[in-house]
Amino acid sequence: MLITDVDVLSAEGKLQIGVNVAVKDGRFCCIGKQIPDGDWGERINGSGLIMIPGLVNAHTHVPMTLMRGYGDDMPLDKWLFERIFPVEDKLTGDHVYWGSMLGIAEMIACGITSFSDMYYYCSNISKAVLESGIKANIGRGISCFDNTKRFADLPAHSELVELIDKYHKSGDGRILIDAAPHSEYTTRPDILFDVAEFAKMHKLRVQVHLSETRKEHLECTGRHGKTPARVLRDSGIFDLPVTAAHCVWLTDLDIEMMCEYDVTVAHCPQSNLKLASGIAQVEKMRQAGMKIALGTDSAASNNNLDMFEEMRTAALLAKGVSLDPCALPACKVLYMATRAGALAQGRHDSGDIKQGYLADFVLLDKHRPEMVPCHDVLSNVVYSAGAASVKMTVVNGRTLYRDGNYLTIDIDRVVFETKRCVSLLI
Amino acid sequence: MLITDVDVLSAEGKLQIGVNVAVKDGRFCCIGKQIPDGDWGERINGSGLIMIPGLVNAHTHVPMTLMRGYGDDMPLDKWLFERIFPVEDKLTGDHVYWGSMLGIAEMIACGITSFSDMYYYCSNISKAVLESGIKANIGRGISCFDNTKRFADLPAHSELVELIDKYHKSGDGRILIDAAPHSEYTTRPDILFDVAEFAKMHKLRVQVHLSETRKEHLECTGRHGKTPARVLRDSGIFDLPVTAAHCVWLTDLDIEMMCEYDVTVAHCPQSNLKLASGIAQVEKMRQAGMKIALGTDSAASNNNLDMFEEMRTAALLAKGVSLDPCALPACKVLYMATRAGALAQGRHDSGDIKQGYLADFVLLDKHRPEMVPCHDVLSNVVYSAGAASVKMTVVNGRTLYRDGNYLTIDIDRVVFETKRCVSLLI
Repeated sequence: MLITDVDVLSAEGKLQIGVNVAVKDGRFCCIGKQIPDGDWGERINGSGLIMIPGLVNAHTHVPMTLMRGYGDDMPLDKWLFERIFPVEDKLTGDHVYWGSMLGIAEMIACGITSFSDMYYYCSNISKAVLESGIKANIGRGISCFDNTKRFADLPAHSELVELIDKYHKSGDGRILIDAAPHSEYTTRPDILFDVAEFAKMHKLRVQVHLSETRKEHLECTGRHGKTPARVLRDSGIFDLPVTAAHCVWLTDLDIEMMCEYDVTVAHCPQSNLKLASGIAQVEKMRQAGMKIALGTDSAASNNNLDMFEEMRTAALLAKGVSLDPCALPACKVLYMATRAGALAQGRHDSGDIKQGYLADFVLLDKHRPEMVPCHDVLSNVVYSAGAASVKMTVVNGRTLYRDGNYLTIDIDRVVFETKRCVSLLI
Repeated sequence: MLITDVDVLSAEGKLQIGVNVAVKDGRFCCIGKQIPDGDWGERINGSGLIMIPGLVNAHTHVPMTLMRGYGDDMPLDKWLFERIFPVEDKLTGDHVYWGSMLGIAEMIACGITSFSDMYYYCSNISKAVLESGIKANIGRGISCFDNTKRFADLPAHSELVELIDKYHKSGDGRILIDAAPHSEYTTRPDILFDVAEFAKMHKLRVQVHLSETRKEHLECTGRHGKTPARVLRDSGIFDLPVTAAHCVWLTDLDIEMMCEYDVTVAHCPQSNLKLASGIAQVEKMRQAGMKIALGTDSAASNNNLDMFEEMRTAALLAKGVSLDPCALPACKVLYMATRAGALAQGRHDSGDIKQGYLADFVLLDKHRPEMVPCHDVLSNVVYSAGAASVKMTVVNGRTLYRDGNYLTIDIDRVVFETKRCVSLLI
């Protein structure tokens, strides 16, 4: 594939105007004014387009797209116990497959090329990922409420073993399997310890929820005499490469310690606002040197999977809360939504537009009203673009979405099947 | 026009499933399961669509769309004095016309059917409004920094007289001219008094900026020994029907007083965050009985004119700040974005889908991924829909936008001309 005369915006917000980008064997192999002769396959005129790195959704639960809008504006306990948990009790692998397909379709249309997920029926999620062409780090959520059981006794353990065997690095490496202890409050220190040992042995990365609500934070301090972050650290979890979602209620000492352990925070500002969890101190974390990626969380609490909105909310909220219009500038938030997410997923050759990197990218329409005029491409991308600006989404050099059409997903069938699933569930 | 089998969502969030909506002479003339026989003209199959009232953008400066992204992430003073003011110094009516057309095109594509504007070169804005088919309350911004001048001596006065004569109630009432004293800090009490008298005489409504920043609030208290809201009240401004934009720093007494005077607040949460002005206490104002509409503010400080995002930000922010997930529920925020805005504009037969009301509405695609599944239409509209969900925008029964195409605007020319304007300005 050869995209000619396109404006390329890097993960760090640097702009190259009117360059040619050649993609071969799924990777960027040439970016510049001159492109060596050769048969590059399809030629795309990029003169009205902006190329940005594919967006990485660093935290979601994609099958929960089935529960979009099922119980908004409710107290958290009532929402969980009367809406979410009863539906989850009835879920089958079939529901999870179609819910995942729906969420993946939405993400692809919004320019997302990779996501990190934590849920169950993960083989069905993996199937949807393989078929759709997107990338994902898939974590089988691990929780335990039975004091007689250890990690090795849990269904999550045997499922994780099977997932690693069947899906880890499958689809040309598009799928990576992560270890995913759900949180401090849904596990125990010994479970966390065993998960950490397991992850070390299998060289897995870790996804975990951390300090999402004030209640979680206070109850943990009551239970263990230390914060949830300290519990994770003391159980050996932070010895692995970890992505910790939310981190709304971290203490200053937590932040300092997590910087030392090189933990990545998956900041989910829209979900945190909607569930009234609070506002993460993202600017303080950033200035302390914390690695920060961005996530939508699930459509049950967001309610869409649009990373453009998530970038905007992150940047605007940081400014509004600090009363500093220079807080969390556009270049930092674009990096969080792209390269920082890819690194959190352990995808070191993804998340930016560089020679040799995997060709995950999005083409945006320069001539949509919201992209005009163009004083600053970066500003338009972060502060104005949206799903409607996306012309094309490409993963590993393969086009998944173009001009409103899906190339790997039968969207009519997905809509039909998700409606069928929902009618059985609710 | 007859739209059959469509799901209709009222401004208050009430849903009618699969009804027929007939439009005649620019008004809704029949809404129900049965529609009297007759020639209704074009017939639209609404079975995959949701009809919502047209969105009303209660505060913007549409020509400033030319300055979208021109100076983000900068201190406020630097942004104003080094970026915005120098460009505004060079603006001509031609620039204002094309900037307005660009902003109007963006708004129409986002489902906005009416907006309230405050700027200058208002005859050029009016021209764009008349040609595009949208509705607008247009205010000629009034400010005065010369102590020897009174309101009657200002160019804004003579322009306002001319605007009323030429454009007030023109385009079948689509244009209304408002009196628009810019703010307390850019005028004087005697100017405000004269504007109030003028507005009373000409039966105009008033648009004004109020307590946007802490600095404004504190300096006013220092200058006058009272808050900006009290200055407006004491100058007689609040004796008129007023829309006050921002209201971030109102005191409790201000809120109480403004409820008595029936002032409508134009809440602009995204602009307030981005310029780091702060977070308006919208839930407190609402519970005190204040009328609240929603506005995007200009694209120079937002940076898009998307009211779906504005609804979402308003609702999410209210929950996140209060730590109450039930704060500002979806039905309230939809009302703010529709009927409350129309009432603030003095358009009593607009802003809702009711027999006899002017037919300003938006059709949304029920089958886009972000609108599936549909546990709750209202939730999907407020918490998930976006510009990409909009299929059709109709004002006074006239279709302005359909399936990505403009019916009244030559968008290629608008994009071309705005680029030309910008190249001359910057």
